[in-house]
Amino acid sequence: QAKAALVMDDASPRQRLAAFVTANLNAPIIDARVFSLWATFLGRAGADPALARAHRDGYLGFRNEVEAVVAEVLAAEQHKPDAGELRHHAIAINAIIDGLWIEGCLAGEMFSPGELAA
Amino acid sequence: QAKAALVMDDASPRQRLAAFVTANLNAPIIDARVFSLWATFLGRAGADPALARAHRDGYLGFRNEVEAVVAEVLAAEQHKPDAGELRHHAIAINAIIDGLWIEGCLAGEMFSPGELAA
Repeated sequence: QAKAALVMDDASPRQRLAAFVTANLNAPIIDARVFSLWATFLGRAGADPALARAHRDGYLGFRNEVEAVVAEVLAAEQHKPDAGELRHHAIAINAIIDGLWIEGCLAGEMFSPGELAA
Repeated sequence: QAKAALVMDDASPRQRLAAFVTANLNAPIIDARVFSLWATFLGRAGADPALARAHRDGYLGFRNEVEAVVAEVLAAEQHKPDAGELRHHAIAINAIIDGLWIEGCLAGEMFSPGELAA
């Protein structure tokens, strides 16, 4: 499971971030049926305030996890990012996972095994 | 229009790539109604071969445009990337534009003006 990657005891922060990204871009998270449900949900979230709130909570929850591990990666490398910089990285990493996940679910046969997480 | 950014006469390849990304993350391409249509389309593409093909053609068309301008950016900076490296960059840039576009369409109020394209 992807969350397990975030709490691996014997791994550096960078390894945990990489494992988290990889886990999110492979089965069972890459899944055509889950994707279809997700797309339907998203399509309605624009018009339904409760779904919009659910999307927003899910998005921010996921992004906050990414942000926490990015903070550890940078701290381990002696960077002291400010809050804006961490937010910026988390938004970008979240977005690239989402974008790669879409293609993996919908058209995974276009990519070599492991290519999306490379 | 986003495509106009790719053919600006008086801009460097790097400026054209940046303008392309920015254009894709602002109105009219950030649009809640277009987004809702897109999500519905994607949700059905998993089960409908004609929609899957349309998605794939659209995706590859967009990604090939990104790849062409990435090649120009790297050439202008004296890098000579091989085809695999170009493909890798184009997949990543495409994915981050998609991921940021989703959040911009669905929950644009979470971000400062210009933040998604930063």
